[in-house]
Amino acid sequence: MKGYAMLGIGKTGWIEKEKPECGPLDAILRPIALAPCTSDIHTVWAGALGERTDMILGHEAIGEVVEVGNLVRDFKPGDKVIVPAITPDWNTLEAQNGYAMHSGGMLSGWKFSNFKDGVFAEFFHVNDADGNLAHLPDGMDLRAACMLCDMIPTGLHGVELADVQFGDEVVVVGIGPVGLMSVAGAAIRGASRIYAVGTRPNCVKLAKEFGATDIISYREGAIDEQVLKLTDRRGVDKVIIAGGDNNTFAEAVRMLKPGGKIGNVNYLGEGESVCIPRVEWGVGMGHKSISGGLMPGGRLRMEKLASLITTGRIHPEKMVTHEFHGLEGVEQALSLMKEKPKDLIKPIVLL
Amino acid sequence: MKGYAMLGIGKTGWIEKEKPECGPLDAILRPIALAPCTSDIHTVWAGALGERTDMILGHEAIGEVVEVGNLVRDFKPGDKVIVPAITPDWNTLEAQNGYAMHSGGMLSGWKFSNFKDGVFAEFFHVNDADGNLAHLPDGMDLRAACMLCDMIPTGLHGVELADVQFGDEVVVVGIGPVGLMSVAGAAIRGASRIYAVGTRPNCVKLAKEFGATDIISYREGAIDEQVLKLTDRRGVDKVIIAGGDNNTFAEAVRMLKPGGKIGNVNYLGEGESVCIPRVEWGVGMGHKSISGGLMPGGRLRMEKLASLITTGRIHPEKMVTHEFHGLEGVEQALSLMKEKPKDLIKPIVLL
Amino acid sequence: MKGYAMLGIGKTGWIEKEKPECGPLDAILRPIALAPCTSDIHTVWAGALGERTDMILGHEAIGEVVEVGNLVRDFKPGDKVIVPAITPDWNTLEAQNGYAMHSGGMLSGWKFSNFKDGVFAEFFHVNDADGNLAHLPDGMDLRAACMLCDMIPTGLHGVELADVQFGDEVVVVGIGPVGLMSVAGAAIRGASRIYAVGTRPNCVKLAKEFGATDIISYREGAIDEQVLKLTDRRGVDKVIIAGGDNNTFAEAVRMLKPGGKIGNVNYLGEGESVCIPRVEWGVGMGHKSISGGLMPGGRLRMEKLASLITTGRIHPEKMVTHEFHGLEGVEQALSLMKEKPKDLIKPIVLL
Amino acid sequence: MKGYAMLGIGKTGWIEKEKPECGPLDAILRPIALAPCTSDIHTVWAGALGERTDMILGHEAIGEVVEVGNLVRDFKPGDKVIVPAITPDWNTLEAQNGYAMHSGGMLSGWKFSNFKDGVFAEFFHVNDADGNLAHLPDGMDLRAACMLCDMIPTGLHGVELADVQFGDEVVVVGIGPVGLMSVAGAAIRGASRIYAVGTRPNCVKLAKEFGATDIISYREGAIDEQVLKLTDRRGVDKVIIAGGDNNTFAEAVRMLKPGGKIGNVNYLGEGESVCIPRVEWGVGMGHKSISGGLMPGGRLRMEKLASLITTGRIHPEKMVTHEFHGLEGVEQALSLMKEKPKDLIKPIVLL
Repeated sequence: MKGYAMLGIGKTGWIEKEKPECGPLDAILRPIALAPCTSDIHTVWAGALGERTDMILGHEAIGEVVEVGNLVRDFKPGDKVIVPAITPDWNTLEAQNGYAMHSGGMLSGWKFSNFKDGVFAEFFHVNDADGNLAHLPDGMDLRAACMLCDMIPTGLHGVELADVQFGDEVVVVGIGPVGLMSVAGAAIRGASRIYAVGTRPNCVKLAKEFGATDIISYREGAIDEQVLKLTDRRGVDKVIIAGGDNNTFAEAVRMLKPGGKIGNVNYLGEGESVCIPRVEWGVGMGHKSISGGLMPGGRLRMEKLASLITTGRIHPEKMVTHEFHGLEGVEQALSLMKEKPKDLIKPIVLL
Repeated sequence: MKGYAMLGIGKTGWIEKEKPECGPLDAILRPIALAPCTSDIHTVWAGALGERTDMILGHEAIGEVVEVGNLVRDFKPGDKVIVPAITPDWNTLEAQNGYAMHSGGMLSGWKFSNFKDGVFAEFFHVNDADGNLAHLPDGMDLRAACMLCDMIPTGLHGVELADVQFGDEVVVVGIGPVGLMSVAGAAIRGASRIYAVGTRPNCVKLAKEFGATDIISYREGAIDEQVLKLTDRRGVDKVIIAGGDNNTFAEAVRMLKPGGKIGNVNYLGEGESVCIPRVEWGVGMGHKSISGGLMPGGRLRMEKLASLITTGRIHPEKMVTHEFHGLEGVEQALSLMKEKPKDLIKPIVLL
Repeated sequence: MKGYAMLGIGKTGWIEKEKPECGPLDAILRPIALAPCTSDIHTVWAGALGERTDMILGHEAIGEVVEVGNLVRDFKPGDKVIVPAITPDWNTLEAQNGYAMHSGGMLSGWKFSNFKDGVFAEFFHVNDADGNLAHLPDGMDLRAACMLCDMIPTGLHGVELADVQFGDEVVVVGIGPVGLMSVAGAAIRGASRIYAVGTRPNCVKLAKEFGATDIISYREGAIDEQVLKLTDRRGVDKVIIAGGDNNTFAEAVRMLKPGGKIGNVNYLGEGESVCIPRVEWGVGMGHKSISGGLMPGGRLRMEKLASLITTGRIHPEKMVTHEFHGLEGVEQALSLMKEKPKDLIKPIVLL
Repeated sequence: MKGYAMLGIGKTGWIEKEKPECGPLDAILRPIALAPCTSDIHTVWAGALGERTDMILGHEAIGEVVEVGNLVRDFKPGDKVIVPAITPDWNTLEAQNGYAMHSGGMLSGWKFSNFKDGVFAEFFHVNDADGNLAHLPDGMDLRAACMLCDMIPTGLHGVELADVQFGDEVVVVGIGPVGLMSVAGAAIRGASRIYAVGTRPNCVKLAKEFGATDIISYREGAIDEQVLKLTDRRGVDKVIIAGGDNNTFAEAVRMLKPGGKIGNVNYLGEGESVCIPRVEWGVGMGHKSISGGLMPGGRLRMEKLASLITTGRIHPEKMVTHEFHGLEGVEQALSLMKEKPKDLIKPIVLL
């Protein structure tokens, strides 16, 4: 079969591979809709996972089941399904402990284009079909559905990590597709004032539409100073980090109230350390807690988040700015993702 | 001063009383907006609190400060303020334990027209002004503001007790003003499908507007049977009880998934017991938890919930169907509340 | 193979059956140590699960692996293992939701002598060996180990459901083996005063040894009245129910502070309903929450609780009052359990 | 009155001051037992709070009430009381939000020898007597009682921040008096294996007595490497930081499992930042959460922790290695604290 692969650090191309084999609990799918992700860019051009040769890329897919293992109960060939980017091994100690995304080791619930081939191919493999696939609801817009694989669960996990409560004032740093979903998630999780940090005009427009009450540009000075000014120096209750870099954490600590919480879902690609300013962190005793985590994957999560789309609570399809057709489209979509033109939020490929 | 009072069980009328005295931490207010509550009806006509003589009624008020004690820091005469129905003593053991509404004894954070005169008077007294008043945001609609005293915090506390999470399916039993706020609260707390139980046409209309996806009428059979049917017998994740009676809990248990949670904010006025069906409760081991609680009061709560109005997350003013003017209006408003005409959701009195 | 079975309601006896088959994820074990449980008695003589014919009894076993499926990674024939009474299907929606004990339906994580043959046999079957077995730590006393299957996880789950915190005053109702583990668990979870309710002299002795500070006998009047008296009518912070009957919940509500929590791990075998007294429950608004749940099972739980034994935090072996030898011993052990002689706490069978 | 004060950075001495005045909610106490704390040393010799002139030192005291304000309900002259180091203003927004220790601003619940004179004097002032004092239980050892002011609540708060659960493996970094209480707290909060990091022989001895199963010396290599070796590179579930310096956090992150939690109660006296290693923190997505907080103070906390002493759950009096008599003794006790001789754990002054 044909797939679009990382040939080595900095190089991508089409390759031919054997169709993957289906274990007794697994499924083989063909993609119906695909989307590239910033982490595909990190993987190839920043070598974030280290060297990889001829590894098929991609971890965001809506698919059709073509084969299932003999122990699979709930799915059969022909079923249309949502595939989460994170596909845990559910009986591991980590999963039993509530952290399925780290099943088998930290971050190891992330398998596509990491430990095995990804989804940018004629066919791809999903481990534990019953535990990791979700039926695609009838009539769901494929653009919206495709955001369920990674953008929605990651963005909304930021809201969960920051533990947003009724009436909280929340900063969301970064308004790419993940950050936009954090904004939308904070708004349907009880936040009142939402300060969204970003500058790209179509992202700003959508952030407002999704519930941001204030837009902050890092071009106009330090984020924390702007937020402290807007809040009469009280600071905010929660900060969701969905963009920026290692320094963003220091800004987050500075603009947070004592008792506040920081939830990070941004992949930190470079630098030795994340540094927390000692004094503003209350000399270690300010109750400003810092959490960061990979999105929870699996079937239940997909079903529950899909229900937020079918009931109209979130409108992720609005983030899809570019559409391509046919498997070949992934090449263009990925290159668009790399170039990041001004009008891009998220591209999608329909097959 | 003049006040509208419970003269005895089943009797109300206007009385004259001394203006209340202001302790060093307290404030004296004159009302700007008032609303009667179903519990005023319970207090007078069901004798829910036992016999009371010449006790001024009412616990929902927006007011103007006319006097403050010498230890009050943050409020001064002339300030317009939101007054929560529940005004705790914040240094008590119960408050330190996180249950300020029970400060000094179960339910004892509820003081207005319970342990002391209520707010339907020319003047009323608020204990611990700094801890219990909140500044009325400039330009806030008084109809919306008046819902902050009890309807919003009670309705939203149901959502908190039921611990609604992203993508949860939720039943809200009762769509009077508290239940309507539970519907609105569930929708901005991450619920997907919301089954609202009620029949009054204008309440049904508003429930839909506030986020209900399904309306269930108890006239068409047992609630739990209808919900189990609509969910292919899976049941729902959470149940918020904001109406009904003691039997509602049995229905709630039956329509709940294992691991589900029930949050009650309905005042249970009669009957010996609330009975939980043994088998459907998993012979005691089904992880269907049952909580019920009085609304949290105090200043922080008022400020945070007010911010949900100013940022447009909730629209409680839509529940106000009847408006009266002048203190005398409380008599009509209360009688309206007692009669419950078809088109009533919530009356308000502006002064 | 030979097994000790429920022949029908009220009847038990030895039967011959085929040795169970091993699926690809499963294991077949031979028992090393077995214990009967009160629920075996309920199953046979109260017909708690309904009619069952020739179903092998027992769900508490330490075993030796004799066969594993080809997908099992971490266990091999010859391994000595702890087998939890509850063996979930870890990839189900319920397990992904944090309630693995209800995987496949309420209480359905309980499979032994419920949906399939139990452990009182020459061989028995365990689903998902990697997810549900734990290696028996070297040198662990088999009497202690055998308590890990059900008595320890159930008793300690009561402590978790009641959410015991540093300095809490806790009532434990029932001091059979589960209640004794609740006492021990409360003591190593931060409780200060522990009121243990029971009368059997050797249980009372052990309750004190495990951390009870006060012993209450239901023979000397209503439990709640005694507790209210001992606490100057303040009541307690938490109640763990590990014995009694449906009426125990009313007593628990009465002796609980507002903001208190009830955790039930007692199997409720009879009666229509559990009834909660309306007034003492704060007319539905007293924040006295009620939870009840089946023990969490699976491998992680077994490993973590086993570590409490190896580090000397709990001493469950002290509960074993009677020892039998050989598979035949289960008949006597079970009959002892049925008769409940005065000196019995828990019998064990070593093979 | 006479008091032992910070005269300026690096200088201490006896001074004469006016006896403090008693506000309507307050109490004036004379000390019965006093203890110096490492933070007194930081305050004077490291200038941790900045310059202070003639500020009476000390925040650990057991006292006798000599005067109360006219609004105080529960205390009267002659009462013997426990005084927490942290005495919040309970009606503030921060306290209503669950973070009373930050009432009025980050860390501002800490008032003694910070915003006002401390307890090393003939008399001292306590704000909000009803909210902040606790009656000294009859017959309580004054050495144990004096540890309730700071050592016990701080040490146990580390256990709460790290969220220790049944069977957790826990590292406690630092086994001075706070760390020793973290060890004791972890043991009565459900930890199994407890790795205590420290070297002083009498602290090591007491750590073992309080529940440590393993002792780790930083002199024998990096802590994290030692812990990873002892756990077969799995790491631990939780880390409590009660000693060390800013670098300790990096070690903590490295030895923590994904899903693990760090709870800090160590005062961080120097350096710009606390730095978290990016890769071992899971590139921001490893669910290794970091919290740090000042001890919760106030009356309820004192009462609950005192009950852990009266029921024999903890034995803090064992930490008192040196006793002095008379107010003059604070000078020697403090100088002992500064010199830290080998056999010192905690000194106390009895009056």
